[in-house]
Amino acid sequence: MARALQLAERGRWTADPNPRVGCVLVRDEVCIGEAWHERAGEPHAEVLALRAAGGDAAGATAYLTLEPCSHYGRTPPCADALIEAGVARVVAAASDPNPRVAGQGLERLRDAGVAVAAGLMAAQSEALNPGFFRRMRDGRPYVRAKLAASVDGRTAMAAGESRWITSAAARRDVHRWRAASSAIVTGVDTVIADDPALTVRDVDGDWLAPRRVVIDTDLRTPPDAGLLADERGVVLIHGGTMPAREAERVHAGAELWQVAPGEDGHVSPLAALDALGAADINEVWLEAGSRLTGAWLQAGWVDELIVYLAPHLMGHDGQPLLTVPGLEAMSDRIALRWQDVRRVGDDLRLTMTMRDDAEDG
Amino acid sequence: MARALQLAERGRWTADPNPRVGCVLVRDEVCIGEAWHERAGEPHAEVLALRAAGGDAAGATAYLTLEPCSHYGRTPPCADALIEAGVARVVAAASDPNPRVAGQGLERLRDAGVAVAAGLMAAQSEALNPGFFRRMRDGRPYVRAKLAASVDGRTAMAAGESRWITSAAARRDVHRWRAASSAIVTGVDTVIADDPALTVRDVDGDWLAPRRVVIDTDLRTPPDAGLLADERGVVLIHGGTMPAREAERVHAGAELWQVAPGEDGHVSPLAALDALGAADINEVWLEAGSRLTGAWLQAGWVDELIVYLAPHLMGHDGQPLLTVPGLEAMSDRIALRWQDVRRVGDDLRLTMTMRDDAEDG
Ligand SMILES: NC(=O)c1ccc[n+]([C@@H]2O[C@H](COP(=O)([O-])OP(=O)(O)OC[C@H]3O[C@@H](n4cnc5c(N)ncnc54)[C@H](OP(=O)(O)O)[C@@H]3O)[C@@H](O)[C@H]2O)c1
Ligand SMILES: NC(=O)c1ccc[n+]([C@@H]2O[C@H](COP(=O)([O-])OP(=O)(O)OC[C@H]3O[C@@H](n4cnc5c(N)ncnc54)[C@H](OP(=O)(O)O)[C@@H]3O)[C@@H](O)[C@H]2O)c1
Repeated sequence: MARALQLAERGRWTADPNPRVGCVLVRDEVCIGEAWHERAGEPHAEVLALRAAGGDAAGATAYLTLEPCSHYGRTPPCADALIEAGVARVVAAASDPNPRVAGQGLERLRDAGVAVAAGLMAAQSEALNPGFFRRMRDGRPYVRAKLAASVDGRTAMAAGESRWITSAAARRDVHRWRAASSAIVTGVDTVIADDPALTVRDVDGDWLAPRRVVIDTDLRTPPDAGLLADERGVVLIHGGTMPAREAERVHAGAELWQVAPGEDGHVSPLAALDALGAADINEVWLEAGSRLTGAWLQAGWVDELIVYLAPHLMGHDGQPLLTVPGLEAMSDRIALRWQDVRRVGDDLRLTMTMRDDAEDG
Repeated sequence: MARALQLAERGRWTADPNPRVGCVLVRDEVCIGEAWHERAGEPHAEVLALRAAGGDAAGATAYLTLEPCSHYGRTPPCADALIEAGVARVVAAASDPNPRVAGQGLERLRDAGVAVAAGLMAAQSEALNPGFFRRMRDGRPYVRAKLAASVDGRTAMAAGESRWITSAAARRDVHRWRAASSAIVTGVDTVIADDPALTVRDVDGDWLAPRRVVIDTDLRTPPDAGLLADERGVVLIHGGTMPAREAERVHAGAELWQVAPGEDGHVSPLAALDALGAADINEVWLEAGSRLTGAWLQAGWVDELIVYLAPHLMGHDGQPLLTVPGLEAMSDRIALRWQDVRRVGDDLRLTMTMRDDAEDG
């Protein structure tokens, strides 16, 4: 199963919006076929592994990082393919969270007399696909928020200057994260301040270009923003305050997604994430300023916070790491959990998740 | 020499204000005596090692982490003791930065026909004694500034609440640093806000109680402050604005050190550090708030910055990590260098030194 997870990992950059899945076929303690799911629309890992094994698959054990599908999607159900090939036993890590599959794949195998075991290394399989599992369960993507800051927690100088806070190595690391994400999301004030391209640069190998998305309640994205100019497409999620016709004229070439604004007058993170989930976005890479990131985090919609900490002091007049109003007492603090700390070039990369309990650090 | 440095390290908690020194005597590739300098006024490492070796010392090689002394201090010169014992060869790591010794120890050995080599692992010996070397060269101590902060770089909530930002393990770590320091220095506003004890607690073994020092230009330390109440003594470094007689009445029991105030009206770091150096303080543990720490750091008097980063967000209304005014452009940033990053309990401990060059991170 560990090998199957390794294979699944190879789909990191290309499987989207499908899950990353690996399959290993074993007979008489020898691997007779292995594969991973590379690309939506192309064959699933099971089918590729069966092809590699050919006639040898009869009587084999299949190790799968995810329950095989049982429905006709873009490809025929893998459960059937395993049965037809005469596989004797299937060991699946995670059950498929997709309500259209949800245990039916394993059920179908059992009905056909295949021995079935499930749950081995399920957590690892899910960790490889946080966005797919989240979207299948809740209809919304998994959100990683990235911030670049100085040791004193500043994300820009007072006047807005913020290039470059981190080293070239850290920025390359960011491009790898972007490449592995389904969408890069930012806020309109970052577009106004930095005119970012939100593209993937300097990443070798194969990857799918992530969608580019701006949270822009009042459609303030400047008509001459680079995002609108190039061919790669951009989604502006807005609140419908600008008349549709005018919006289409001003932001020609952009996809305009209207959602209901939240109580505070801004596009709510919930509405934006619902819309992104509906568009099959698994993993969001939120790369915005302190206000948008703070608002989403405070509302509980950030799953992972990734801070690149540069060995500099930018001073107390600089812009804060996060704008999170209303924290007055120590007991109001927002609790995090360290996931990973490592050096990336000259900088430190801190990865944290939200902590539910209010236990005292 | 590595062994001698290990031995020297044992003096970390007790040698102050003397340097930490280790000595290993070797003859025919066998260690015949080893020792470290434990306490000022007690025998130096060389003398203790010679005692251990007894008559065997004749013809031996002495590995010393610091050049032997050549003057009569509280103990007779070690160079003489080595000569008398008939040591054939001396390998010294660092030369003594003390102007009263400065090469004379090695000179005296050479004159007596002892073979002398110097410089082996000198940097390590100096790193073990940053304060002693600094004080001998410049007359001022080495300064470590400690701050406890949340991931978003906040050292207190807006209203001043800051207990406890870090975990008990980090606070224990702080007490170990305190115990290894010659003085704990804080600012009067921290005394007013927190009424800290600035004592060493929960540290096993032998250590010397560090001096307690408050930077207090206008002698605003409250007469009922805990620091004044207990027997351990406290130094208030002030600018002489309060009449001496009144000061002595209000702050009975405190040592009052008057220094010339700086241009900005505050006790200048330079004046304070000169006074501390004159009092044989090697290593200062600066444990103050963002303003005093920021002012000392910006003026270039902080050698090492130690930040305990707690896995929490305290929000943008909280007090900053450092108050360092006047940084406007990215090119004004203060450059640091990572020295060490490690997990201490629930927190991260980041150790940084100042970086002179303005190379772009
Ligand atoms: N260091 C870094 O990692 C980094 C990354 C990106 C940007 N930056 C810097 O950050 C600065 C911009 O930061 P920013 O946070 O102001 O811009 P931002 O990322 O564009 O986010 C602010 C915008 O988000 C929208 N928003 C949506 N929901 C919100 C809510 N609940 N509360 C508040 N705003 C909400 C608002 O637009 P609507 O009014 O349209 O709702 C607001 O104008 C720039 O100086 C940029 O250089 C730094
Ligand atoms: N998180 C932590 O690690 C930590 C540690 C300690 C304190 N704190 C918190 O920090 C807050 C107090 O911070 P603080 O920085 O205001 O207090 P501070 O540490 O007492 O330092 C401020 C004082 O330093 C003196 N000072 C000397 N030179 C100065 C200069 N060049 N510029 C400005 N001040 C100078 C000033 O006193 P004179 O007017 O007498 O010159 C000033 O009142 C409290 O809320 C406390 O709880 C946090």
